[in-house]
Amino acid sequence: MANSATPLGKIAAEPEPIALEWAATALLIIDMQRDFMEPGGFGETLGNDVGQLARAVKPIVSVLNAARDTGMLVIHTREGHLPDLSDAPLAKVERGAPSLRIGDPGPMGRILIRGEAGHDIIPELYPLDSEIVIDKPGKGAFYATEIGDVLQKYGIENLLVCGVTTEVCVNTTVREANDRGYRCVVLADGCASYFPEFHEMGLKMIKAQGRGTGGTFTGDFENISLRGYHDEREHDGDYG
Amino acid sequence: MANSATPLGKIAAEPEPIALEWAATALLIIDMQRDFMEPGGFGETLGNDVGQLARAVKPIVSVLNAARDTGMLVIHTREGHLPDLSDAPLAKVERGAPSLRIGDPGPMGRILIRGEAGHDIIPELYPLDSEIVIDKPGKGAFYATEIGDVLQKYGIENLLVCGVTTEVCVNTTVREANDRGYRCVVLADGCASYFPEFHEMGLKMIKAQGRGTGGTFTGDFENISLRGYHDEREHDGDYG
Repeated sequence: MANSATPLGKIAAEPEPIALEWAATALLIIDMQRDFMEPGGFGETLGNDVGQLARAVKPIVSVLNAARDTGMLVIHTREGHLPDLSDAPLAKVERGAPSLRIGDPGPMGRILIRGEAGHDIIPELYPLDSEIVIDKPGKGAFYATEIGDVLQKYGIENLLVCGVTTEVCVNTTVREANDRGYRCVVLADGCASYFPEFHEMGLKMIKAQGRGTGGTFTGDFENISLRGYHDEREHDGDYG
Repeated sequence: MANSATPLGKIAAEPEPIALEWAATALLIIDMQRDFMEPGGFGETLGNDVGQLARAVKPIVSVLNAARDTGMLVIHTREGHLPDLSDAPLAKVERGAPSLRIGDPGPMGRILIRGEAGHDIIPELYPLDSEIVIDKPGKGAFYATEIGDVLQKYGIENLLVCGVTTEVCVNTTVREANDRGYRCVVLADGCASYFPEFHEMGLKMIKAQGRGTGGTFTGDFENISLRGYHDEREHDGDYG
Protein backbone atom coordinates (compact mmCIF):
# COMPACT_ATOMS: atom_id res chain seq x y z
CA MET A 1 0.00 0.00 0.00
CA ALA A 2 1.06 3.56 -0.60
CA ASN A 3 2.52 5.57 2.24
CA SER A 4 4.03 9.01 2.56
CA ALA A 5 7.48 7.81 1.52
CA THR A 6 6.20 6.06 -1.60
CA PRO A 7 6.63 7.75 -4.98
CA LEU A 8 3.25 8.49 -6.47
CA GLY A 9 2.77 8.93 -10.16
CA LYS A 10 0.34 11.74 -10.80
CA ILE A 11 -1.53 11.18 -14.03
CA ALA A 12 -3.58 13.79 -15.84
CA ALA A 13 -6.43 11.40 -16.51
CA GLU A 14 -10.13 11.65 -17.19
CA PRO A 15 -12.60 11.92 -15.57
CA GLU A 16 -10.17 13.19 -12.96
CA PRO A 17 -6.44 13.07 -12.16
CA ILE A 18 -5.25 9.95 -10.42
CA ALA A 19 -2.19 9.22 -8.28
CA LEU A 20 -0.69 5.74 -8.48
CA GLU A 21 2.08 4.20 -6.46
CA TRP A 22 4.63 3.58 -9.22
CA ALA A 23 6.22 0.61 -7.46
CA ALA A 24 2.86 -1.17 -7.58
CA THR A 25 2.18 -0.27 -11.22
CA ALA A 26 2.81 -2.29 -14.38
CA LEU A 27 2.58 -1.46 -18.06
CA LEU A 28 0.23 -3.91 -19.82
CA ILE A 29 0.42 -3.97 -23.63
CA ILE A 30 -2.44 -5.88 -25.22
CA ASP A 31 -2.10 -8.00 -28.38
CA MET A 32 0.21 -5.87 -30.54
CA GLN A 33 0.60 -8.91 -32.80
CA ARG A 34 1.30 -9.12 -36.49
CA ASP A 35 -1.97 -11.07 -36.95
CA PHE A 36 -3.90 -7.96 -35.95
CA MET A 37 -1.55 -5.21 -37.12
CA GLU A 38 -0.23 -6.36 -40.49
CA PRO A 39 -1.74 -7.25 -43.87
CA GLY A 40 -2.36 -10.96 -44.30
CA GLY A 41 -3.18 -11.60 -40.65
CA PHE A 42 -6.37 -12.49 -38.80
CA GLY A 43 -7.59 -8.91 -38.56
CA GLU A 44 -7.49 -8.46 -42.29
CA THR A 45 -9.13 -11.84 -42.98
CA LEU A 46 -12.09 -10.53 -40.97
CA GLY A 47 -12.40 -7.71 -43.48
CA ASN A 48 -10.80 -5.02 -41.34
CA ASP A 49 -8.51 -2.17 -42.40
CA VAL A 50 -5.38 -2.93 -40.36
CA GLY A 51 -4.08 0.57 -41.12
CA GLN A 52 -6.52 1.86 -38.49
CA LEU A 53 -4.37 0.26 -35.78
CA ALA A 54 -1.05 1.76 -36.85
CA ARG A 55 -1.65 5.00 -34.95
CA ALA A 56 -1.22 3.24 -31.62
CA VAL A 57 2.32 2.01 -32.32
CA LYS A 58 4.32 5.23 -31.84
CA PRO A 59 2.61 6.18 -28.54
CA ILE A 60 3.20 2.68 -27.19
CA VAL A 61 6.87 2.78 -28.25
CA SER A 62 7.22 5.97 -26.21
CA VAL A 63 5.58 4.67 -23.07
CA LEU A 64 7.40 1.33 -23.40
CA ASN A 65 10.74 3.10 -23.63
CA ALA A 66 9.86 5.18 -20.58
CA ALA A 67 8.83 2.08 -18.66
CA ARG A 68 12.07 0.32 -19.62
CA ASP A 69 14.11 3.34 -18.52
CA THR A 70 12.50 3.30 -15.11
CA GLY A 71 12.44 -0.43 -14.55
CA MET A 72 8.65 -0.60 -14.43
CA LEU A 73 7.26 -4.12 -14.86
CA VAL A 74 6.24 -4.65 -18.49
CA ILE A 75 3.72 -7.30 -19.55
CA HIS A 76 2.85 -8.09 -23.16
CA THR A 77 -0.13 -10.25 -24.11
CA ARG A 78 -0.75 -12.31 -27.24
CA GLU A 79 -4.07 -13.82 -28.26
CA GLY A 80 -3.71 -17.22 -29.82
CA HIS A 81 -4.25 -20.93 -29.63
CA LEU A 82 -2.39 -24.19 -29.33
CA PRO A 83 -1.59 -25.88 -32.67
CA ASP A 84 -4.27 -28.56 -32.10
CA LEU A 85 -6.86 -25.85 -31.25
CA SER A 86 -7.68 -27.65 -28.02
CA ASP A 87 -7.96 -24.29 -26.27
CA ALA A 88 -10.11 -22.70 -29.00
CA PRO A 89 -13.86 -22.86 -28.36
CA LEU A 90 -15.85 -24.14 -31.33
CA ALA A 91 -18.05 -21.04 -31.12
CA LYS A 92 -14.94 -18.90 -31.67
CA VAL A 93 -13.51 -20.90 -34.56
CA GLU A 94 -16.86 -21.03 -36.38
CA ARG A 95 -17.71 -17.39 -35.75
CA GLY A 96 -18.39 -14.96 -38.59
CA ALA A 97 -17.25 -15.43 -42.15
CA PRO A 98 -13.53 -14.66 -42.30
CA SER A 99 -11.62 -15.49 -45.47
CA LEU A 100 -9.29 -17.54 -43.26
CA ARG A 101 -10.38 -19.15 -40.01
CA ILE A 102 -8.30 -19.66 -36.86
CA GLY A 103 -5.78 -22.40 -37.60
CA ASP A 104 -5.92 -22.01 -41.40
CA PRO A 105 -2.58 -21.47 -43.19
CA GLY A 106 -2.01 -17.83 -44.18
CA PRO A 107 0.82 -15.62 -45.40
CA MET A 108 2.30 -15.39 -41.88
CA GLY A 109 1.71 -19.01 -40.89
CA ARG A 110 -1.39 -20.57 -39.37
CA ILE A 111 -3.84 -17.88 -38.29
CA LEU A 112 -3.69 -17.04 -34.56
CA ILE A 113 -1.62 -20.10 -33.64
CA ARG A 114 1.13 -19.88 -31.03
CA GLY A 115 4.59 -20.06 -32.51
CA GLU A 116 3.59 -18.85 -35.97
CA ALA A 117 5.06 -15.61 -37.34
CA GLY A 118 1.68 -13.86 -37.42
CA HIS A 119 1.06 -14.65 -33.77
CA ASP A 120 4.17 -12.83 -32.63
CA ILE A 121 4.46 -9.23 -31.52
CA ILE A 122 5.37 -6.56 -34.09
CA PRO A 123 9.10 -5.72 -34.31
CA GLU A 124 8.66 -2.15 -33.05
CA LEU A 125 7.38 -3.40 -29.69
CA TYR A 126 9.20 -6.71 -29.46
CA PRO A 127 9.52 -7.84 -25.82
CA LEU A 128 12.89 -7.93 -24.14
CA ASP A 129 13.90 -11.30 -22.70
CA SER A 130 13.36 -9.78 -19.26
CA GLU A 131 9.75 -8.84 -19.96
CA ILE A 132 6.71 -11.00 -19.36
CA VAL A 133 4.67 -12.37 -22.23
CA ILE A 134 1.22 -13.76 -21.44
CA ASP A 135 -0.39 -16.05 -24.01
CA LYS A 136 -4.16 -15.90 -23.77
CA PRO A 137 -6.85 -17.90 -25.57
CA GLY A 138 -9.55 -15.27 -25.07
CA LYS A 139 -10.09 -11.56 -25.44
CA GLY A 140 -9.55 -10.98 -21.74
CA ALA A 141 -6.01 -11.38 -20.36
CA PHE A 142 -7.25 -12.91 -17.10
CA TYR A 143 -9.19 -15.87 -18.49
CA ALA A 144 -7.17 -19.10 -18.50
CA THR A 145 -3.81 -17.37 -18.04
CA GLU A 146 -1.23 -16.90 -15.29
CA ILE A 147 -1.49 -13.09 -15.24
CA GLY A 148 -3.21 -12.98 -11.86
CA ASP A 149 -0.36 -14.93 -10.28
CA VAL A 150 2.23 -12.74 -11.99
CA LEU A 151 0.63 -9.51 -10.77
CA GLN A 152 0.37 -10.90 -7.25
CA LYS A 153 4.02 -11.99 -7.25
CA TYR A 154 5.17 -8.51 -8.19
CA GLY A 155 2.77 -6.73 -5.82
CA ILE A 156 1.03 -4.94 -8.65
CA GLU A 157 -2.11 -2.97 -7.79
CA ASN A 158 -2.32 -0.63 -10.78
CA LEU A 159 -2.18 -1.18 -14.52
CA LEU A 160 -1.35 1.20 -17.34
CA VAL A 161 -3.14 -0.45 -20.24
CA CYS A 162 -2.70 0.05 -23.98
CA GLY A 163 -2.88 -1.99 -27.17
CA VAL A 164 -5.54 -3.26 -29.54
CA THR A 165 -8.38 -3.23 -29.99
CA THR A 166 -9.88 -0.58 -27.74
CA GLU A 167 -13.37 -2.03 -27.54
CA VAL A 168 -12.53 -5.73 -27.63
CA CYS A 169 -9.38 -7.01 -25.93
CA VAL A 170 -8.47 -3.79 -24.10
CA ASN A 171 -12.03 -3.30 -22.84
CA THR A 172 -12.49 -6.93 -21.85
CA THR A 173 -9.17 -7.04 -20.00
CA VAL A 174 -9.85 -3.79 -18.15
CA ARG A 175 -13.26 -5.07 -17.11
CA GLU A 176 -11.66 -8.25 -15.75
CA ALA A 177 -9.01 -6.20 -13.95
CA ASN A 178 -11.65 -3.95 -12.39
CA ASP A 179 -13.53 -6.90 -10.98
CA ARG A 180 -10.27 -8.14 -9.45
CA GLY A 181 -9.58 -4.79 -7.75
CA TYR A 182 -6.82 -3.41 -9.99
CA ARG A 183 -6.80 0.31 -10.67
CA CYS A 184 -6.49 0.75 -14.42
CA VAL A 185 -5.45 3.74 -16.46
CA VAL A 186 -6.11 3.19 -20.13
CA LEU A 187 -3.63 5.11 -22.27
CA ALA A 188 -6.03 6.50 -24.86
CA ASP A 189 -3.49 7.35 -27.56
CA GLY A 190 -1.91 3.93 -27.15
CA CYS A 191 -5.12 2.13 -28.08
CA ALA A 192 -6.78 1.73 -31.46
CA SER A 193 -9.69 0.00 -33.12
CA TYR A 194 -10.54 -1.05 -36.65
CA PHE A 195 -13.62 1.14 -36.09
CA PRO A 196 -12.85 4.73 -34.95
CA GLU A 197 -16.38 5.02 -33.55
CA PHE A 198 -15.77 2.05 -31.26
CA HIS A 199 -12.40 3.44 -30.17
CA GLU A 200 -14.05 6.67 -29.02
CA MET A 201 -17.02 4.95 -27.42
CA GLY A 202 -14.86 2.28 -25.79
CA LEU A 203 -12.87 5.00 -24.07
CA LYS A 204 -16.03 6.91 -23.16
CA MET A 205 -17.50 3.83 -21.50
CA ILE A 206 -14.30 3.36 -19.57
CA LYS A 207 -14.38 6.93 -18.34
CA ALA A 208 -18.04 6.63 -17.36
CA GLN A 209 -17.23 3.47 -15.48
CA GLY A 210 -14.50 5.40 -13.69
CA ARG A 211 -17.08 7.83 -12.44
CA GLY A 212 -19.66 5.25 -11.68
CA THR A 213 -19.61 1.56 -11.99
CA GLY A 214 -16.39 0.36 -13.53
CA GLY A 215 -13.50 2.28 -12.06
CA THR A 216 -11.21 3.00 -14.95
CA PHE A 217 -9.53 6.14 -16.12
CA THR A 218 -8.19 7.11 -19.48
CA GLY A 219 -4.92 8.98 -19.49
CA ASP A 220 -2.97 10.84 -22.09
CA PHE A 221 0.32 8.94 -21.96
CA GLU A 222 2.29 12.08 -22.76
CA ASN A 223 1.18 13.50 -19.47
CA ILE A 224 2.41 10.52 -17.52
CA SER A 225 5.79 11.47 -16.18
CA LEU A 226 7.33 8.06 -15.89
CA ARG A 227 10.65 9.81 -15.36
CA GLY A 228 9.22 11.01 -12.07
CA TYR A 229 9.05 7.42 -10.96
CA HIS A 230 12.71 6.94 -11.68
CA ASP A 231 13.85 10.20 -10.10
CA GLU A 232 11.79 9.79 -6.96
CA ARG A 233 12.85 6.20 -6.57
CA GLU A 234 16.49 7.17 -6.65
CA HIS A 235 15.81 9.99 -4.24
CA ASP A 236 13.86 7.96 -1.75
CA GLY A 237 15.69 4.73 -2.25
CA ASP A 238 13.28 2.83 -0.05
CA TYR A 239 12.08 0.10 -2.35
CA GLY A 240 13.53 -2.13 -4.98
CA MET B 1 -24.10 -31.26 -29.44
CA ALA B 2 -26.98 -30.58 -31.77
CA ASN B 3 -28.11 -33.29 -34.11
CA SER B 4 -30.92 -33.65 -36.60
CA ALA B 5 -33.38 -34.78 -33.94
CA THR B 6 -32.61 -31.88 -31.61
CA PRO B 7 -35.03 -28.95 -31.45
CA LEU B 8 -33.33 -25.83 -32.67
CA GLY B 9 -34.55 -22.40 -31.69
CA LYS B 10 -34.33 -20.12 -34.66
CA ILE B 11 -33.76 -16.56 -33.55
CA ALA B 12 -34.16 -13.50 -35.75
CA ALA B 13 -30.97 -11.93 -34.49
CA GLU B 14 -28.47 -9.38 -35.76
CA PRO B 15 -26.09 -9.42 -37.56
CA GLU B 16 -27.69 -12.63 -38.80
CA PRO B 17 -30.23 -15.23 -37.69
CA ILE B 18 -28.91 -17.89 -35.33
CA ALA B 19 -30.13 -21.38 -34.51
CA LEU B 20 -29.60 -22.64 -30.96
CA GLU B 21 -30.23 -26.04 -29.49
CA TRP B 22 -32.88 -25.17 -26.92
CA ALA B 23 -31.96 -28.01 -24.58
CA ALA B 24 -28.48 -26.51 -24.25
CA THR B 25 -29.74 -22.94 -23.78
CA ALA B 26 -30.35 -21.01 -20.55
CA LEU B 27 -31.94 -17.64 -19.83
CA LEU B 28 -29.50 -15.42 -17.91
CA ILE B 29 -31.00 -12.34 -16.23
CA ILE B 30 -28.36 -9.89 -15.02
CA ASP B 31 -28.69 -7.83 -11.82
CA MET B 32 -32.36 -6.82 -11.90
CA GLN B 33 -31.93 -5.69 -8.29
CA ARG B 34 -33.72 -3.00 -6.33
CA ASP B 35 -30.35 -1.29 -5.70
CA PHE B 36 -30.06 -0.56 -9.41
CA MET B 37 -33.74 -0.28 -10.39
CA GLU B 38 -35.42 1.65 -7.58
CA PRO B 39 -35.03 5.09 -5.99
CA GLY B 40 -32.78 5.08 -2.92
CA GLY B 41 -30.47 2.34 -4.17
CA PHE B 42 -26.87 2.28 -5.33
CA GLY B 43 -27.67 3.37 -8.88
CA GLU B 44 -29.35 6.52 -7.68
CA THR B 45 -26.58 7.30 -5.17
CA LEU B 46 -24.23 7.41 -8.15
CA GLY B 47 -26.35 10.19 -9.61
CA ASN B 48 -28.20 8.07 -12.16
CA ASP B 49 -31.82 8.29 -13.28
CA VAL B 50 -33.12 4.85 -12.35
CA GLY B 51 -36.20 5.46 -14.52
CA GLN B 52 -34.00 4.75 -17.54
CA LEU B 53 -33.85 1.08 -16.54
CA ALA B 54 -37.61 0.55 -16.15
CA ARG B 55 -38.11 -0.13 -19.86
CA ALA B 56 -36.33 -3.48 -19.59
CA VAL B 57 -38.72 -4.94 -17.01
CA LYS B 58 -41.73 -5.77 -19.18
CA PRO B 59 -39.69 -7.47 -21.94
CA ILE B 60 -37.86 -9.55 -19.34
CA VAL B 61 -41.15 -10.54 -17.67
CA SER B 62 -42.32 -11.82 -21.05
CA VAL B 63 -39.24 -13.87 -21.83
CA LEU B 64 -39.05 -15.13 -18.24
CA ASN B 65 -42.65 -16.34 -18.43
CA ALA B 66 -41.90 -18.04 -21.74
CA ALA B 67 -38.82 -19.69 -20.29
CA ARG B 68 -40.78 -20.89 -17.25
CA ASP B 69 -43.53 -22.29 -19.50
CA THR B 70 -41.01 -24.33 -21.45
CA GLY B 71 -38.85 -25.47 -18.57
CA MET B 72 -35.77 -23.64 -19.84
CA LEU B 73 -33.04 -23.23 -17.22
CA VAL B 74 -33.30 -19.75 -15.67
CA ILE B 75 -30.36 -18.08 -13.92
CA HIS B 76 -30.59 -14.75 -12.10
CA THR B 77 -27.51 -12.82 -10.97
CA ARG B 78 -27.11 -10.27 -8.19
CA GLU B 79 -24.12 -7.99 -7.72
CA GLY B 80 -23.24 -7.50 -4.09
CA HIS B 81 -20.83 -8.07 -1.27
CA LEU B 82 -20.49 -9.89 2.02
CA PRO B 83 -21.45 -7.83 5.08
CA ASP B 84 -17.79 -7.43 6.13
CA LEU B 85 -16.86 -6.28 2.58
CA SER B 86 -14.11 -8.91 2.47
CA ASP B 87 -14.99 -9.59 -1.17
CA ALA B 88 -15.13 -5.91 -2.16
CA PRO B 89 -11.90 -4.55 -3.65
CA LEU B 90 -10.78 -1.29 -2.10
CA ALA B 91 -10.59 0.27 -5.56
CA LYS B 92 -14.29 -0.48 -6.01
CA VAL B 93 -15.43 0.81 -2.63
CA GLU B 94 -13.42 4.04 -2.98
CA ARG B 95 -14.40 4.64 -6.60
CA GLY B 96 -16.15 7.80 -7.71
CA ALA B 97 -18.10 10.11 -5.45
CA PRO B 98 -21.44 8.48 -4.68
CA SER B 99 -23.65 9.99 -1.99
CA LEU B 100 -23.62 6.57 -0.33
CA ARG B 101 -20.75 4.10 -0.71
CA ILE B 102 -20.96 0.30 -0.82
CA GLY B 103 -21.79 -0.88 2.70
CA ASP B 104 -23.28 2.43 3.87
CA PRO B 105 -26.79 2.32 5.34
CA GLY B 106 -29.47 3.52 2.90
CA PRO B 107 -33.24 3.52 2.57
CA MET B 108 -33.23 -0.16 1.47
CA GLY B 109 -30.55 -1.35 3.90
CA ARG B 110 -26.78 -1.33 3.47
CA ILE B 111 -25.86 -0.46 -0.13
CA LEU B 112 -25.05 -3.50 -2.32
CA ILE B 113 -24.76 -5.91 0.63
CA ARG B 114 -26.07 -9.45 0.37
CA GLY B 115 -29.22 -10.05 2.39
CA GLU B 116 -30.32 -6.42 2.43
CA ALA B 117 -33.62 -5.42 0.80
CA GLY B 118 -31.91 -3.30 -1.85
CA HIS B 119 -29.69 -6.18 -2.90
CA ASP B 120 -32.63 -8.39 -3.78
CA ILE B 121 -34.30 -8.80 -7.14
CA ILE B 122 -37.32 -6.62 -8.00
CA PRO B 123 -40.71 -8.20 -7.26
CA GLU B 124 -41.76 -8.34 -10.94
CA LEU B 125 -38.89 -10.73 -11.71
CA TYR B 126 -38.52 -12.50 -8.39
CA PRO B 127 -36.86 -15.91 -8.81
CA LEU B 128 -38.84 -19.08 -8.21
CA ASP B 129 -37.37 -21.42 -5.62
CA SER B 130 -36.47 -23.74 -8.47
CA GLU B 131 -34.40 -21.12 -10.29
CA ILE B 132 -30.71 -20.46 -9.83
CA VAL B 133 -29.47 -17.26 -8.22
CA ILE B 134 -25.78 -16.40 -8.64
CA ASP B 135 -24.29 -13.84 -6.24
CA LYS B 136 -21.35 -12.09 -7.83
CA PRO B 137 -18.89 -9.57 -6.40
CA GLY B 138 -17.98 -8.10 -9.80
CA LYS B 139 -19.59 -6.82 -12.92
CA GLY B 140 -18.95 -10.09 -14.72
CA ALA B 141 -21.00 -13.14 -13.69
CA PHE B 142 -18.07 -15.52 -14.17
CA TYR B 143 -15.54 -13.91 -11.83
CA ALA B 144 -15.47 -15.55 -8.39
CA THR B 145 -18.79 -17.33 -8.82
CA GLU B 146 -20.05 -20.88 -9.40
CA ILE B 147 -21.77 -20.08 -12.70
CA GLY B 148 -19.27 -22.01 -14.81
CA ASP B 149 -19.90 -25.15 -12.78
CA VAL B 150 -23.66 -24.65 -12.99
CA LEU B 151 -23.62 -24.25 -16.77
CA GLN B 152 -21.44 -27.32 -17.15
CA LYS B 153 -23.70 -29.41 -14.90
CA TYR B 154 -26.74 -28.55 -17.02
CA GLY B 155 -24.93 -28.98 -20.34
CA ILE B 156 -25.53 -25.37 -21.32
CA GLU B 157 -23.77 -24.12 -24.47
CA ASN B 158 -25.91 -21.06 -25.28
CA LEU B 159 -27.10 -18.11 -23.23
CA LEU B 160 -29.99 -15.73 -23.78
CA VAL B 161 -28.81 -12.68 -21.85
CA CYS B 162 -30.77 -9.69 -20.59
CA GLY B 163 -30.73 -7.30 -17.64
CA VAL B 164 -28.88 -4.19 -16.56
CA THR B 165 -26.85 -2.35 -17.42
CA THR B 166 -26.22 -2.97 -21.11
CA GLU B 167 -22.69 -1.61 -21.23
CA VAL B 168 -21.47 -2.65 -17.79
CA CYS B 169 -22.65 -5.94 -16.28
CA VAL B 170 -24.34 -7.33 -19.40
CA ASN B 171 -21.38 -6.47 -21.62
CA THR B 172 -18.79 -7.74 -19.13
CA THR B 173 -20.64 -11.02 -18.60
CA VAL B 174 -21.11 -11.61 -22.32
CA ARG B 175 -17.41 -10.97 -22.92
CA GLU B 176 -16.54 -13.52 -20.23
CA ALA B 177 -19.00 -16.00 -21.72
CA ASN B 178 -17.54 -15.54 -25.20
CA ASP B 179 -14.04 -16.31 -23.99
CA ARG B 180 -15.39 -19.49 -22.40
CA GLY B 181 -17.03 -20.63 -25.63
CA TYR B 182 -20.69 -19.94 -24.89
CA ARG B 183 -22.87 -18.67 -27.72
CA CYS B 184 -24.70 -15.62 -26.43
CA VAL B 185 -27.78 -13.89 -27.74
CA VAL B 186 -28.33 -10.57 -26.01
CA LEU B 187 -32.03 -9.70 -25.87
CA ALA B 188 -31.81 -6.05 -26.83
CA ASP B 189 -35.20 -4.94 -25.53
CA GLY B 190 -34.52 -6.72 -22.25
CA CYS B 191 -31.43 -4.63 -21.53
CA ALA B 192 -31.17 -1.02 -20.41
CA SER B 193 -28.62 1.54 -19.32
CA TYR B 194 -28.71 4.74 -17.30
CA PHE B 195 -27.25 6.26 -20.48
CA PRO B 196 -29.27 5.59 -23.67
CA GLU B 197 -26.16 6.29 -25.76
CA PHE B 198 -24.27 3.51 -24.01
CA HIS B 199 -27.20 1.12 -24.39
CA GLU B 200 -27.17 1.61 -28.15
CA MET B 201 -23.40 1.46 -28.46
CA GLY B 202 -23.11 -1.49 -26.09
CA LEU B 203 -25.45 -3.45 -28.37
CA LYS B 204 -23.65 -2.24 -31.47
CA MET B 205 -20.31 -3.45 -30.11
CA ILE B 206 -21.85 -6.80 -29.34
CA LYS B 207 -23.18 -7.11 -32.88
CA ALA B 208 -19.83 -6.11 -34.34
CA GLN B 209 -18.15 -8.70 -32.16
CA GLY B 210 -20.61 -11.23 -33.53
CA ARG B 211 -19.36 -10.48 -37.02
CA GLY B 212 -15.77 -10.26 -36.07
CA THR B 213 -14.03 -10.81 -32.82
CA GLY B 214 -16.51 -11.36 -30.04
CA GLY B 215 -19.21 -13.67 -31.25
CA THR B 216 -22.41 -12.33 -29.82
CA PHE B 217 -25.74 -11.62 -31.38
CA THR B 218 -28.52 -9.33 -30.33
CA GLY B 219 -32.02 -10.68 -30.75
CA ASP B 220 -35.46 -9.20 -30.53
CA PHE B 221 -36.97 -11.36 -27.79
CA GLU B 222 -40.40 -11.15 -29.37
CA ASN B 223 -39.08 -13.10 -32.32
CA ILE B 224 -37.78 -15.91 -30.16
CA SER B 225 -40.40 -18.62 -30.25
CA LEU B 226 -39.71 -20.28 -26.95
CA ARG B 227 -42.93 -22.20 -27.42
CA GLY B 228 -41.20 -24.00 -30.24
CA TYR B 229 -38.83 -25.49 -27.72
CA HIS B 230 -41.69 -26.88 -25.69
CA ASP B 231 -43.67 -28.22 -28.62
CA GLU B 232 -40.72 -29.85 -30.33
CA ARG B 233 -39.50 -31.36 -27.11
CA GLU B 234 -42.83 -33.05 -26.56
CA HIS B 235 -42.88 -34.23 -30.14
CA ASP B 236 -39.40 -35.62 -30.24
CA GLY B 237 -39.25 -36.76 -26.64
CA ASP B 238 -35.59 -37.64 -26.90
CA TYR B 239 -34.03 -35.61 -24.15
CA GLY B 240 -35.00 -34.53 -20.66
